[in-house]
Amino acid sequence: MSQIIEIEKRTHLSLLFDFYGALLTEKQRLMFDLYYQNDLSLGEIAEEQGISRQAVYDILKRSESILGEYENKLHLAEKFIKTNEKLKKALNVIDDIKEENSLPMLKQLKEIIVSLIEED
Amino acid sequence: MSQIIEIEKRTHLSLLFDFYGALLTEKQRLMFDLYYQNDLSLGEIAEEQGISRQAVYDILKRSESILGEYENKLHLAEKFIKTNEKLKKALNVIDDIKEENSLPMLKQLKEIIVSLIEED
Repeated sequence: MSQIIEIEKRTHLSLLFDFYGALLTEKQRLMFDLYYQNDLSLGEIAEEQGISRQAVYDILKRSESILGEYENKLHLAEKFIKTNEKLKKALNVIDDIKEENSLPMLKQLKEIIVSLIEED
Repeated sequence: MSQIIEIEKRTHLSLLFDFYGALLTEKQRLMFDLYYQNDLSLGEIAEEQGISRQAVYDILKRSESILGEYENKLHLAEKFIKTNEKLKKALNVIDDIKEENSLPMLKQLKEIIVSLIEED
């Protein structure tokens, strides 16, 4: 797997984890966190947790599969990406409005939309 | 249960169903749909489906419980309500901007935000 695809896969899985991580078991969440967020290797996690490298691998694969199944059913990550694209488009439109006397209201509007994006 | 609380409960359950309905079994979805969306009585559903009234009731209660459990973990309905409140606030701000020469851009902006709300 090329490095770009690997990074994209990690980014995508992290997004799925943000949405569905609460549906994993505590152990699955821990392994996922150590591998994908803290960037430890399988060997490092195995040693730290006192389990085999294969067990870590299996738990990660199972977790990825569960996250993928939820996304296939609920499509939250897909909707999130589309929503954010639209919101960014809205922000670009606002930036194009240059009327001096509209500034306070546009500032207010922008704050709302920015907070909406950051919250997601 | 007062009628207002009953209507609020139905509205809330319908929202949960929109988010997590795909995670129910086909039978649970069907019963939920007949009772909450098509407004059939337990007796009518029982007769139509050739099962007991108690079985319909049990499936509905189980479905409600599952939907509630997913909401407790993922909070999607709660986030959805908050997001929509913010978007409506943004729309009100836009409506307050009355600069004639900003109209085309504001119209465009409004269309984006409206589509975002409708999509949800």
